[in-house]
This record gives sequence, structure tokens and C-alpha cells, in this order.
Amino acid sequence: MKRERLSISERGINMPSSAMRKLVPYAEEAQARGMTVIPLNIGQPDIETPPVFWEAVREFPERVLAYGPSAGRQECREGVVAYYSHLDIDLKPEHLIITTAGSEAVLFALLAVGDPGDEIIVPEPFYSNYASMIQMAGMKLVPFTTYAQHGYHLPEREVIERLVTERTRAILYASPGNPTGVVYTREEIAMLGDIARSHGLFVMADEVYREFSYDGQIAASLLHTPGLEEHAIVLDSVSKRYSACGARVGCLITRNEALMAAIMKMAMSRLSAPVLEQAGIAACLHLPPDNFTPIRETYTRRRDLVFERLNQMEGVFCPKPAGAFYVMPTLEGIETEPFARWLLTDFEQGGETVLVAPGAGFYWTPGLGRDKIRIAYVLNTDRLARAMDLLEVAIHRYREEEGS
Amino acid sequence: MKRERLSISERGINMPSSAMRKLVPYAEEAQARGMTVIPLNIGQPDIETPPVFWEAVREFPERVLAYGPSAGRQECREGVVAYYSHLDIDLKPEHLIITTAGSEAVLFALLAVGDPGDEIIVPEPFYSNYASMIQMAGMKLVPFTTYAQHGYHLPEREVIERLVTERTRAILYASPGNPTGVVYTREEIAMLGDIARSHGLFVMADEVYREFSYDGQIAASLLHTPGLEEHAIVLDSVSKRYSACGARVGCLITRNEALMAAIMKMAMSRLSAPVLEQAGIAACLHLPPDNFTPIRETYTRRRDLVFERLNQMEGVFCPKPAGAFYVMPTLEGIETEPFARWLLTDFEQGGETVLVAPGAGFYWTPGLGRDKIRIAYVLNTDRLARAMDLLEVAIHRYREEEGS
Repeated sequence: MKRERLSISERGINMPSSAMRKLVPYAEEAQARGMTVIPLNIGQPDIETPPVFWEAVREFPERVLAYGPSAGRQECREGVVAYYSHLDIDLKPEHLIITTAGSEAVLFALLAVGDPGDEIIVPEPFYSNYASMIQMAGMKLVPFTTYAQHGYHLPEREVIERLVTERTRAILYASPGNPTGVVYTREEIAMLGDIARSHGLFVMADEVYREFSYDGQIAASLLHTPGLEEHAIVLDSVSKRYSACGARVGCLITRNEALMAAIMKMAMSRLSAPVLEQAGIAACLHLPPDNFTPIRETYTRRRDLVFERLNQMEGVFCPKPAGAFYVMPTLEGIETEPFARWLLTDFEQGGETVLVAPGAGFYWTPGLGRDKIRIAYVLNTDRLARAMDLLEVAIHRYREEEGS
Repeated sequence: MKRERLSISERGINMPSSAMRKLVPYAEEAQARGMTVIPLNIGQPDIETPPVFWEAVREFPERVLAYGPSAGRQECREGVVAYYSHLDIDLKPEHLIITTAGSEAVLFALLAVGDPGDEIIVPEPFYSNYASMIQMAGMKLVPFTTYAQHGYHLPEREVIERLVTERTRAILYASPGNPTGVVYTREEIAMLGDIARSHGLFVMADEVYREFSYDGQIAASLLHTPGLEEHAIVLDSVSKRYSACGARVGCLITRNEALMAAIMKMAMSRLSAPVLEQAGIAACLHLPPDNFTPIRETYTRRRDLVFERLNQMEGVFCPKPAGAFYVMPTLEGIETEPFARWLLTDFEQGGETVLVAPGAGFYWTPGLGRDKIRIAYVLNTDRLARAMDLLEVAIHRYREEEGS
């Protein structure tokens, strides 16, 4: 039984590195040289966390910060129910558990629907951490591609359906979508639901960006689709919605009782989600729905600015994002991974540069996304305008240097 | 490809229910009838969270509660380094990451050392959530039994070594131990280390209860054992140590760089641990080591009371726990699962009863632990004395009713 040497797990070795964070060391070096690096790489909104959050935290009445219930603090579960009632979605507290951010909701859902070797169908480009979590769960990501020229909307039903095998357990998608900003229509979601019903699959909808949808359009929820009571799993981040990303409070919603029972056992195994921050988020959940109106207006202006500026650049194209706070432009003829590094190592204008996420990390199919970047428009319009100036100059200069 | 019906995962179905929490519904019913239920089932200390925690939280300077670094806030990582320096353990911040409680440290370690089907050797009885997490990881728990008559100390090396197969990846243990309170000697830990070196295994030490060790004995750390730099993984809960269980701040320590790189990718996939609560815990980590002295004295009194009272009861036996805040007595001739339920449904004295955790949930080998219970002595001595009175009467009455 003697083994030559210690080795770590295959899944540990094969875990993809975070596309958003792998350039951070280069950015830190640039900053160490005195450069200002405008961060367009990560979806950290600059909107202030609501005062009610801080008040609830400061006034937390207990002197022992004890474990919370594994399913979440009652005030928090009831807050989620109240929030969803404004969306005409009728839930009971037992249909949901509070998770440690949306990330844990994704992981629990994966572990509950599938075993090692089972398959999850995911439209690409996708939130790159799905790939990490599917890997951690010992499962397989099976992608189908969505295209910029179709606004990253879903392909024909047949394209998705022919990927279904005996090992397929679920379709996992995000709408409003990260990294593209696509918002699926009710018809698109109904089609996914119909595929799920036909083949005995779950549908896992990441609706973290629900409130970030623009142009008067309201992002449809999987929970609005009838006939999916047993199939639907909604993954939600509550803290992100209220610009309290560091609070790590999310939720998982399903009306499937057997599934919820399995997920509850997982929740019990980690005892509870962060308690103090649940108290803060519970206060936020009772904010009126028009809390999001000015935020939506702010993001609409940012989206418009970035969308227009990008499409004015030579050889740059992106469809208009309808939601979330990301946009995924194609930079024709540019390998974006070396380009993003070059921005940090060799480019500057007036002591400034930008940090962007290369596109390939959001795709599973080898070779795709290499001419794309993801931009998070979570800065004020002045900074975004400056970032677009820098990007335009940089693209021009990079093409010249590459061509020379 | 048509599947008859939706089914959840095997691992979801096979997840063990939490031994600590499965009696809670009965306790709630008893409380609804007006009964006072003294909770001896869960390790939630009653010690107040240090004032510096609440101050740091109230004075948190940022107005946007943003994501933290995936490896943890720098102040928190440095706080852990400072804490360990008092134990003569020399760490650098890059040897550790801050996790969402000890639970996440256990899960990340499992996922990084093994793939689905791989085996983890665990002494039983064990913290029952290890079984849940090994199941979630798709791996196999391989137990060896420790016995009350040996004070739950380790068996001979051969007993452990003969369990090693080609699929074995690690030995996982807790010292001070939950549920027995055993504290392994340096020699015992060195033996586990030696087995690990001989067979190319990792050793995962859960040292959450390190500061809770009594009688002047200092619990040895795996990190005190030389020659294990590549093999040692320490799993730690920082929030539990400072009686802030709800804060969900733990850490994972390893000097194995390849392993840490894999774990960092997992940490990145969930973005960050709770940020506000890390700020609170960072303040606690700079408390002087004598912060634990009065707490240790308090627990020593509680341990003494419970240990003495239990051994005075007829047909009850337990070894003296040297650490943690649990004791696992044997109740001779009593099936403890129905007994624990009976305590809530059929027993009372003066309107009071007790909630205890049945022993079988802490064992993997079928049939073991059925005559044992776990008691957490996390209440003041008056309440503990009353709980012991109730338990003594209850055991006597239960034996009479069963015998009749």
C-alpha cells in the first residue's frame, strides 16, 4: 500500500482558476509602480449598503452570537417570503433555506440533484464559478453555446435537447445573465422547463441579478413558470441585491419536498449561515420594492454609456445587455488573455489603466471566448467614461504593436 | 432518454441526519406544552461574545459591505498568525485561509485530498457532521473504534494501519475530541503522523476545541509534530473559540503549497467568507492568551460536576473528559434513541426535562453507540446540576417502565 508521494485530488488539480481574479497579481504590481488601475473585472457594486442594514447590525440584541437555525433565521426566511410576494410569487418559509451566499445555494443544489459522474447542462458563456462547483461536486459540465450575434439568447430547443443523456440531472442557467447581461424571455424559460419535464430533469435558475433589469422589462423568474413545482430550484443571493456582497447571505428555493429534505441535511451539516449578517439582511428585505428604482436608473445610465462607447470603438461589438451589470464585447482579432495582461504590464495613459476579465474563462468549449472580455459596470459614469477612453486607446495601440 | 421521474442524488438520500438536531421537533412540542427543556444536545456555549467583537462590528468603517479577499481579510489572517505564535507555532499568512467556519475548512480539505470513491479513516465516535461532509464529497468514511474503557484514546498502530488501502487519502480526527472530550497525547498524534508518512496520506486535525483543555494539560497540536509539513492540515473554528459561533469564521492551515493552491481555487469559487464578522473576529484574535483562563476554569467546574454526577448514577459510566465541552456516558442496558425521545414525550419533573443527543449518530459501525448519549456541558453549574438531577430520575424511571 506504499504510495510514492502525497498527491492532491484530481478535482483539486483540475479546478479552473477564477477568470475574474487571476490577473489580480499583475494589477497589484501595477499599483505598486504607482499606477491607478480602474477595476472592471469584478461585480462589486459601489452602491452603499442600506442604512437599515447597519442599524440592524448595531442594534443586534443578543450578547452571545449563537448558532442560527440551519434553515436560516426566521426573520430572514419571512423577509424572503415578503420580498417574493411583491413579485407575485407565493412562497412559504419551508420552501426556502438561507444559505451562505448564492455560492452555497449553487453547491447544495448540485450535490442534491446529482452524484459523481452525473451531468449538468449549462449555456456558455456562464458564471465561471459554476465550473468550479461542478468540479468540486465530482460532476460534469456539458455546455451549449450562445452567441453574441443572437444577443446571447437561447438556441433552438433541439440544440439543448440533444445533449441530454442518462447521466443528465439538471439545466443550470443565470438570468439576468453573468457575464453577458442577457435576460431570457418567459418563452425561453418555459422552453427550458418543458425540456426538464420531458426528460425528468431539474432546472436550476440563478436569479441573483433579478432586480438589475432595464428598459422597463421585468426579468421573468423560473418561479413564474407553471407546472415546474417539482423541477424548479431558484438560487438567489440576497446580500448582492442589497449591495452587501460581503454579508454572504443567499437563499435556495424549491417546492420539491424530497429535494428540500436532502438540502436541509446539508444545511444541518454546516450548522448555520452567518447570523449577524442575516439580521442585517432581514432588515433590508423589508425595504419597499421602489428601493431598487434609483439603483436601476443608475445602472441603466452606466449600461448605456458602456454599451454605446464600446460599439463606437473600431472592431468592437457587443449586444445591448438587458440586465445584470456586465457586458461581454468581442474585440475582433485580439487575443484577450495576453491583452488583459498587457494592459497591466505595458499600457498606461496619464498613469492609469484598466483591469478586465478575459472571455475564455466563461466558456467550457476550448477556443471559445478568446476574443472577448467581460466588463462589470459597477463604477460611476465618470470613472466608466475614463475607463472607456483608456480601453479605446489601448485597443488601438495594442493592434498597432501587434501588427508591427 | 426519458426518465420515469425526477430523483434526487444518492448522496442526498444517504446523507445522515444530524444526531444533534433530529430530536428538536420533539423538544419544540414539549415546549409548546409548557415544558422547560434543558438543552444538553448542542455545543452552543453560554459564554458572552467578547466586547471587542461587538465594538469592531459597530465601528466597521466601510459604507459598502464589499466582498473580502478569498483567502480572508488580511487583519484576520494576521490575527490567526499572532494567535498561533502564542502556541509556539510559527506560521505565515500564506499558510492559512479564512473559511466560513470550521465546517467549510473540513469540506475544502476533503475535496482537495480526495476524489469520489476515495477513503478517509476516522476514529469513531466522531463529530457526526464529518460523515455528512464525506458523503457530500462522494467519498467513503472508514472507521476504527475507540472505547470508553480506554478513555477513547487511540488503539494500537496496527488497528489503524490495516485499514489503509489504495484509496485511502487521509486520517481525520478531532483533539480535543467531540463527542468524547478525549485529548490525544503528543505520542498518539506522532503515531498518526508516522502512519501518514509511511503510506503517503494526509492528516486532517480538527483542533476547534484546542483552548478547552483542562487540568493544566495543553492540548498538543498536529502542527507541533515535526516532519509533517507536507501532510498536516489543521481545521480550526475561530468563532467557536471566542463564543461567537454564529459568526462562521474558521480557518484551514497547511504548509503544503500544492494543496493550498487547490484549496485557494475552491475559496475563490465562493468569493469570500463573511466580511463583517471577520472584522469582529480579527479583534478577538488579538486578545491575550489569558483571555481563556477564566473560561477554562468555568468549564473545568462544569466538567467536574457532570463527570462526578454521571458516575454516581447507577449503571452509568464515563471516562473523565480532558477537553472540549462534551462527555459521552454509557447508560447500561438503555437504548438511548428511544430514551432521548421518551425524555421529551413522556418524562417530566417539576415541568422540566432534558434534551440529549443519542450516541449512535456519532458512530459509523452499525450497532455501536446505542447505549451512549452525548452531553454538552455549556450551561452554568446550577442548570447543569438540575439537568443531572433530572437525568438521574429519568434513567431510574425509564428502567422501571422498561422492566415492567
